[in-house]
Amino acid sequence: MANFKPSVPKGTRDFSPTEMVKRNYIFDTIKSVFKKYGYQEIQTPSMENLDTLTGKYGDEGDKLIFKILNSGEYLNEPKKKLFDFGAEENSARLVSLISEKALRYDLTVPFARYVVMHQNDISFPFKRFQVQPVWRADRPQKGRYREFYQCDADVVGSESLLNEAEFVLIYDEALRKLGLTNFTIKLNNRKILSGIAEIIGKPELIVDMTVAIDKLDKIGLDGVIKELLDRGFNDTDIDKLKPVILLEGSNEEKLRSLKQVLASSETGLKGIGEIEQIFGYVHQLSASGIGPSALNLQLDITLARGLNYYTGAIFEVKANNVSIGSIGGGGRYDDLTGMFGLKGLTGVGISFGADRIYDVLEELKLFPESTEETTKVLITNFDSEAEKFALPILAQLRAQNISAELYPASAKLKKQMSYADGKNIPYVILIGSEEIQSGLLTLKNMKSGDQEKLTINSIVEKLA
Amino acid sequence: MANFKPSVPKGTRDFSPTEMVKRNYIFDTIKSVFKKYGYQEIQTPSMENLDTLTGKYGDEGDKLIFKILNSGEYLNEPKKKLFDFGAEENSARLVSLISEKALRYDLTVPFARYVVMHQNDISFPFKRFQVQPVWRADRPQKGRYREFYQCDADVVGSESLLNEAEFVLIYDEALRKLGLTNFTIKLNNRKILSGIAEIIGKPELIVDMTVAIDKLDKIGLDGVIKELLDRGFNDTDIDKLKPVILLEGSNEEKLRSLKQVLASSETGLKGIGEIEQIFGYVHQLSASGIGPSALNLQLDITLARGLNYYTGAIFEVKANNVSIGSIGGGGRYDDLTGMFGLKGLTGVGISFGADRIYDVLEELKLFPESTEETTKVLITNFDSEAEKFALPILAQLRAQNISAELYPASAKLKKQMSYADGKNIPYVILIGSEEIQSGLLTLKNMKSGDQEKLTINSIVEKLA
Repeated sequence: MANFKPSVPKGTRDFSPTEMVKRNYIFDTIKSVFKKYGYQEIQTPSMENLDTLTGKYGDEGDKLIFKILNSGEYLNEPKKKLFDFGAEENSARLVSLISEKALRYDLTVPFARYVVMHQNDISFPFKRFQVQPVWRADRPQKGRYREFYQCDADVVGSESLLNEAEFVLIYDEALRKLGLTNFTIKLNNRKILSGIAEIIGKPELIVDMTVAIDKLDKIGLDGVIKELLDRGFNDTDIDKLKPVILLEGSNEEKLRSLKQVLASSETGLKGIGEIEQIFGYVHQLSASGIGPSALNLQLDITLARGLNYYTGAIFEVKANNVSIGSIGGGGRYDDLTGMFGLKGLTGVGISFGADRIYDVLEELKLFPESTEETTKVLITNFDSEAEKFALPILAQLRAQNISAELYPASAKLKKQMSYADGKNIPYVILIGSEEIQSGLLTLKNMKSGDQEKLTINSIVEKLA
Repeated sequence: MANFKPSVPKGTRDFSPTEMVKRNYIFDTIKSVFKKYGYQEIQTPSMENLDTLTGKYGDEGDKLIFKILNSGEYLNEPKKKLFDFGAEENSARLVSLISEKALRYDLTVPFARYVVMHQNDISFPFKRFQVQPVWRADRPQKGRYREFYQCDADVVGSESLLNEAEFVLIYDEALRKLGLTNFTIKLNNRKILSGIAEIIGKPELIVDMTVAIDKLDKIGLDGVIKELLDRGFNDTDIDKLKPVILLEGSNEEKLRSLKQVLASSETGLKGIGEIEQIFGYVHQLSASGIGPSALNLQLDITLARGLNYYTGAIFEVKANNVSIGSIGGGGRYDDLTGMFGLKGLTGVGISFGADRIYDVLEELKLFPESTEETTKVLITNFDSEAEKFALPILAQLRAQNISAELYPASAKLKKQMSYADGKNIPYVILIGSEEIQSGLLTLKNMKSGDQEKLTINSIVEKLA
């Protein structure tokens, strides 16, 4: 036992006090903005019935769902005797015999299940947010974990593009509150992509088209053209696509060009109309009159994420001055709850990539100093006389809502100082015989090293 | 598919927006008190390696651990071919072949694992709190769930009884902040129980003794005596035990009697000394000079919870005016981390029963009204002109940090009012053609039904 080295399962993490304060700062900031826009928090169980999850994430996704072993003596039923593990098809069969629950894979399917189960108690449009961990049996690698938090807001039961506009503002407000300024909120619309494929006369190749165009940043125009040719487009198509791919200028200029290109596509023009209306809402909602460009809102028709899923707006947020890419994304979907039998409920949602935002704030040193502090002040403890003197002082500090500690046993100064250092405690009150006699306590600022002699009332005032 | 009725696994729950606000109110209140006393939050992964958990909770506990199926094609290895499910011993063998991870069963073992893994980064004494769900494959019943939150604070690496005293204050402060006044914090000490068993000359029967005495409330003195006789005590023992069981009066009176009874037991007297010291600390720390009795702190020598585990202080908190019993408990333990190879680290910890506290607050109607509100104000939407007029108002409200919504589409008044009702929105701003012309908006108080005409600035002022 003494040689047993404890560890955590691969792809999972412990969060230390310092990390927790920073993580809570991110989550609390985002949640406060969600609430300000009328979103309400829900939580769903960590485990769902397996049949709630299976088939919702494609074959690859299904394999990555963590299944939970049934409890009890499920293996002793006679009908299950002698099982041939060698036969590949038995693997899936066995799982169905011994597991009927699984850990949630995302927050979207549980949300859909929630809406259907509680539809009679919900006031639609239903604006909910949810911040909970999800689990995926992915191969762990840098920045990819098997347990990680998702941070989602969705509204279902409203077609209004006001929702899309408000998500732009929610992204903007939350990220600015976190101290980020250099980010871009990218907006596209599935209908514009459909229009483009339609104009070229190859609507069936819309996915190939967007997959190729999406890589412009990485492989350049020549690379994109090569990939388009590989994927079934010809030179005539490329000529038509080029001006779209290379679309430049302000949002207004892009929209003007697109309107010409898509003049004959009803769907395409509808997509443009939606984008314009979202821009309009954003403009009117920007309190001080700042327009979309000041919000770093950018039409980007190469944006395609989750194309099979989204039917209208597509969002993505990028941090611009760091290597980390997308820190958020989302879009509009039709029929979220159809999989559970409730048809025709449209919705739109966004997600914040909390782990990546954490890395960005760390890289740019944007965490405020307060996220490193825990206890505000430590009172030293050198002997029982000093301890007795310290107790009412400790009580007085806490009565003023100041987070305070008395070192719980008499110990050497060095040990107590290193405790304060280890916990990032910014102030220490030193109580020796001199202090007890004079009633003037020594307050040490741990950052500057400065010491002053103060009455307890002055200390309370200073720290409150 | 249309007939598939979604459900959640038995013993698990969804939490609606209203429930979430109330749950967060409880957790946030308790966390704020933990922090004030210098406790820092950590989180551990939901899953632990199976060998971290197995053997820590007894045979019964091991059976209640939710195991996670390995991912991948673990079933196709030839050596595992042909497995006889009929043989009972194979059940455990199969589990070991197909599962190496499990969901955490409590927060204590993961905490011990955390301390050992991160011992070089921790400043001892380490004061941590942790609020996370745990999972148990218990038979679900009223008030008992398969997924529920635990809410723990522990300090390890400090023998000081100041820690025990502060836990008493933490219980008191947190519960009072939640509006509870009629509760009792019960305190006992394992050493007193050992001393009693020693005096009687049957130290080996300490568990039988405490199990019996613990039932005094339920089965009365005669019942306890009968059970003691059944469990191996004789009439002479009972004569010695009676005055201890029937100990009455103030804490001071109880301690005085106990000192006489335990005069010849070194261990027993040590336990009494510890209790006295804790009372002394509590007294000195009660800012306004309130002593232990005003804190509802009560010595209760029948208190025995977790006896096999605790070595010093034992805590339990009871809500007095409701049917629900214990809403918290804890104690001091030695050697928390010994199971992971780090010997000799003493600790003491407490736990809040959040689900039960929720039920108590609900039963006593102690949740503040603010826990029912979400969005502060809804702006109605009757047509596109009114919507356009409303947008800057919406922006102005939010700029003042007022949680506000515009109904996202034009709809009948009744529908919008019922939306506001469903979300417990306390105010509605009505905007019709009259309001647009005059600039005076109608603010409706949804609780009283009162309406007033106000400028937007007055409304902002009123709601801020």
